[in-house]
Amino acid sequence: MASPRLLDSIDLPGGLDQLDHQQIEQLAREVRSEIIRTVARNGGHLAPSLGVVELTIALHRVLKCPRDKIIWDVGHQSYAHKILTGRLDRFDTLRKYGGLSGFPRRDESPFDAFNTGHSSTSISAALGMAIARDLAGERYTVVAVIGDGSLTGGMAFEALNHAGHLGRDLIVILNDNEMSISRNVGALAAYLSRIRMHPGVRKVKGDVERLVERLPAVGDKLSIAVKRVKGSIKYLVVPGMLFEELGFTYLGPIDGHDEALLERTIRDARDKGGPVLIHIVTQKGRGYGPSEENPRIFHGVGPFDVESGTLKSKDGPWFTDFFRDAMVELGQDDSRIVAITAAMPDGTGLSEFARRFPERFIDVGIAEQHAVTLACGLASQGFIPVVAIYSTFLQRAYDQIIHDLALQHLHVVLAIDRAGLAGEDGPTHHGAFDISYLRAVPGMVVLAPKDGEELREMLRWAILSEGPVAIRYPRDAARPVLTTRVGMKPGFGLPKAEVLREGKDVTLVALGSMVNLALDCARTLSRYNVSATVINSRAAKPIDIETIGRFATGSAMVATLEENTLTGGFGEGVTQGLHDAGLGDIPVVRFGLPDRFVEHGPRSLLLQRCGLSQDNIVKSILSQLGSRVAGRAEDDRKWT
Amino acid sequence: MASPRLLDSIDLPGGLDQLDHQQIEQLAREVRSEIIRTVARNGGHLAPSLGVVELTIALHRVLKCPRDKIIWDVGHQSYAHKILTGRLDRFDTLRKYGGLSGFPRRDESPFDAFNTGHSSTSISAALGMAIARDLAGERYTVVAVIGDGSLTGGMAFEALNHAGHLGRDLIVILNDNEMSISRNVGALAAYLSRIRMHPGVRKVKGDVERLVERLPAVGDKLSIAVKRVKGSIKYLVVPGMLFEELGFTYLGPIDGHDEALLERTIRDARDKGGPVLIHIVTQKGRGYGPSEENPRIFHGVGPFDVESGTLKSKDGPWFTDFFRDAMVELGQDDSRIVAITAAMPDGTGLSEFARRFPERFIDVGIAEQHAVTLACGLASQGFIPVVAIYSTFLQRAYDQIIHDLALQHLHVVLAIDRAGLAGEDGPTHHGAFDISYLRAVPGMVVLAPKDGEELREMLRWAILSEGPVAIRYPRDAARPVLTTRVGMKPGFGLPKAEVLREGKDVTLVALGSMVNLALDCARTLSRYNVSATVINSRAAKPIDIETIGRFATGSAMVATLEENTLTGGFGEGVTQGLHDAGLGDIPVVRFGLPDRFVEHGPRSLLLQRCGLSQDNIVKSILSQLGSRVAGRAEDDRKWT
Repeated sequence: MASPRLLDSIDLPGGLDQLDHQQIEQLAREVRSEIIRTVARNGGHLAPSLGVVELTIALHRVLKCPRDKIIWDVGHQSYAHKILTGRLDRFDTLRKYGGLSGFPRRDESPFDAFNTGHSSTSISAALGMAIARDLAGERYTVVAVIGDGSLTGGMAFEALNHAGHLGRDLIVILNDNEMSISRNVGALAAYLSRIRMHPGVRKVKGDVERLVERLPAVGDKLSIAVKRVKGSIKYLVVPGMLFEELGFTYLGPIDGHDEALLERTIRDARDKGGPVLIHIVTQKGRGYGPSEENPRIFHGVGPFDVESGTLKSKDGPWFTDFFRDAMVELGQDDSRIVAITAAMPDGTGLSEFARRFPERFIDVGIAEQHAVTLACGLASQGFIPVVAIYSTFLQRAYDQIIHDLALQHLHVVLAIDRAGLAGEDGPTHHGAFDISYLRAVPGMVVLAPKDGEELREMLRWAILSEGPVAIRYPRDAARPVLTTRVGMKPGFGLPKAEVLREGKDVTLVALGSMVNLALDCARTLSRYNVSATVINSRAAKPIDIETIGRFATGSAMVATLEENTLTGGFGEGVTQGLHDAGLGDIPVVRFGLPDRFVEHGPRSLLLQRCGLSQDNIVKSILSQLGSRVAGRAEDDRKWT
Repeated sequence: MASPRLLDSIDLPGGLDQLDHQQIEQLAREVRSEIIRTVARNGGHLAPSLGVVELTIALHRVLKCPRDKIIWDVGHQSYAHKILTGRLDRFDTLRKYGGLSGFPRRDESPFDAFNTGHSSTSISAALGMAIARDLAGERYTVVAVIGDGSLTGGMAFEALNHAGHLGRDLIVILNDNEMSISRNVGALAAYLSRIRMHPGVRKVKGDVERLVERLPAVGDKLSIAVKRVKGSIKYLVVPGMLFEELGFTYLGPIDGHDEALLERTIRDARDKGGPVLIHIVTQKGRGYGPSEENPRIFHGVGPFDVESGTLKSKDGPWFTDFFRDAMVELGQDDSRIVAITAAMPDGTGLSEFARRFPERFIDVGIAEQHAVTLACGLASQGFIPVVAIYSTFLQRAYDQIIHDLALQHLHVVLAIDRAGLAGEDGPTHHGAFDISYLRAVPGMVVLAPKDGEELREMLRWAILSEGPVAIRYPRDAARPVLTTRVGMKPGFGLPKAEVLREGKDVTLVALGSMVNLALDCARTLSRYNVSATVINSRAAKPIDIETIGRFATGSAMVATLEENTLTGGFGEGVTQGLHDAGLGDIPVVRFGLPDRFVEHGPRSLLLQRCGLSQDNIVKSILSQLGSRVAGRAEDDRKWT
């Protein structure tokens, strides 16, 4: 019979203090298997979490949380932290609807000091807490844990620059695993690599000091040189000089899997005071063969088989797959096309383009702002950049979209993946706002394809167009829309809406991912003798009100369907457009994301919870149409 | 009789090549007087432009523009560039409606390689051009000119990190004048200051090398030390190590007013190849006594008297003045209030708070992203941060507003100055989008005061409220609204709309800066026997549709007035709200900013051009109301 796990027998996190070295190693193994077992079932961020198990144990042995604060940058590495802070019993609900979040959440536990999800925010938040602590005259330790990938995001630098200047007690742990999601790019990555390669150089300063002290004071020219050197020894390099120049004390590099060394160094940093950066080197995916070998694949994964490390198949092809293929196809024909990603070559599907056209592929690292303005620089010289960034991360480049892209009306294509509900990653990763924030920008064209084939057409249209064009599509399989197609013709002005089905009672106007649902609804409505027009709007800006209005005029009502917040979204644009066209008296019912943050869970369930389900839409339309169908509706329990 | 100016007698910029040293000095003087004379009359960015006259001459003597590209970061220092590139004859139109822009614009001259206006974009744009150049197999030089203040913006770091990694030919000129608008903050500023103070340390490396070479190879312990040192000399510091670590060749610091030295250094940088950073030290406001003494005041100024340096008085008090006073008043009562600015202590009016409560004032430098998340860190510990950032710059923190602020529903107040049309600074500085982009964010409250007194009330309300609250107000005098007031009561739920005047024919619903205009319109309409209700909406989110609907119901029409783009804006929210309340058949006419970028010019003229004038609004309403008033309208030529 197996002996009981330490995890189950000790009181966490307080009981960590009583463990000896051997028990700590055992605990680390137990935490890793718990993580592997759960992620294999639920999917999640495996490799980042496996890399910081020793760090998490060391932090919770040295610190007294929640009085002391740990801010996990991005937060995808917080699984061990969750297990060790009272959430072991619920850990099997990780990323499930109603279960634990895959990221730190203040409303989940007092041990989660700050919500994260996007990169590079931790140092800013930690510095805010440090200032608050000092203003309140309290004493506690604030630690930001940030990966080397996240450090390339500009706001991390803004925070380092400010923290180094203020000089308040603050510990930044730089978790250097040589990767963000893919291999890191940038000069900073090369710099960290140099430090890792030459740990000995930190001794140089001491060596030179000793050497100079021993030199005999003879020879006049020599002695002048010695004097000069003595006066300037403070400028000799130690590793981490870059951080030292920014006002941080640099400690490291140290082995991030040596728990005892981590503890000592964290204590040293706390005793030292002021801003301290601890540079630890960890192995992403540590402790599980498949993720050690393929940390890139196991960064964030769906369910997999623990024994073999084989990923369980997902439905396909996805919108992303169509984008991947279309980029290769278009890139072959047009050498002006340059593909740009911000640390997401795999997630966006651009890896294949990168393989085929390496000289026209640019991964800027986690740096969305730079990505968009870099694209503008390229576009100003006649190239056609396609910038592929997830909807939620594109929020970081909003000013650049307005100020650098739209104001110059440059020809840049924004390929916005993960638009709409992202599923298990939850509210930090849902792309719920892009239509609203892009519609407001003058001169933008905002498109959303109904299926993979239309994504291909839209991309081609965008390449042959001019000015800024955004194409947004969901993290989902691209179920082909099975109707007679009216292809988009490049070079013939702005895209017109496509009428997929004509009816007389109701006009359904759907955008992108919602077109198939609208067709399903129309089919079901026909069983209630309600005949529905289905319009694929194609664009959220400009909206083809002329076509919509033509069908709306004869309808009892219009329903809009979109996978974006309703506030300032597509449906609001339709209501306004119809109103301005003198059709304000036709009722418009809007279906879309609510004006609140949507929780995490399976995408299909979340869509349903947001009312974007056939059941809800059909029921709402029937109820709106009123008594005419009441008798029939009562017969069918499905709609009550 | 004065001799003719060189400026008028040589062909620019080509003729610069023929000038000798003395003529260059004369030209620099002429350019400075032209700038001083024009800015004294038109207002503008005086101090930044005076600081880079020699640099501009040197650049145009070394480079062949427009083939070679200069990207001016922010662009407020581009006046000499404009004068030297064929725009002398129009320079008196600077910042005037229809005249030259105060910033580089590609549609103004081929010598303006890239539009700027916001900080920290230049290196990204320049790198994009450098990549484009190499892809196209062309050969030209790309130069980004960036101030030390702009360098603290995160995206500049993102670009440096990427450029240093790529290694392409690119020159970054760091124009170090120790200021952004106010004195710079941050560790980077301290770092640059150390370099300036110790220009000699760059010799250290050479000294040590020479020393080590001369050492006799005697004494075993000593020789081991010598060997170690020899192997590590490459790690000795030279100034600019921070930039060298990021992959740049660092040249400097050099005197930015020594034109000949600048030329030589730019040539050196070009010959050297790869990414080169030239660190030049300049004096902001150089060559004009008052601006040398007060570069902070003369950063951006209105008209002034050249002789005395006295600023011509502006109307007042401004909304900013009321904010300044209210912050001091509230800060006195509530020690939880912390004021945060991003390099704008004067412009936002927070200098006074800073003087009174220095420990609760934070200037993060040009770092809007960090400012908002830092505020969230403070708020998470019970403080109440008020983050004052101009509308157009707040776009940079959009992701942080969604992801760090709203998602955690933290209590942070955003004080959004320069909301609406900024006037002479033009489209890069207009705050045209904040209502649209903030309305989409769940849980945000977005307020706009009708006058200074209401700004004070709203700030108090926001402090006593919970969650994120934005208050937006224009760059304008705060004309008091002279009606019986219904004060906002803190602690009594969300702000309700305020009915300022009741009428039966038309309902005018105005937001913030437009309330006074709506009242003016109502008064004029009454002369046409049209009686108008005027509602001060107070909030753009949530909108008090209940009150608006109550008056709208009896009206022939509703008109909304806002100083924000109509797309996704306040008026659209009113239309949608009335529609959802079953009042979709009441016509809504919306007045606001158009769905295009608005040019530069006097604020009042721009508002008029956007239709936000009494003339236009009254005329539109009368025309909408139709024949009923047609007879009377024809009598009055004003409305035709």
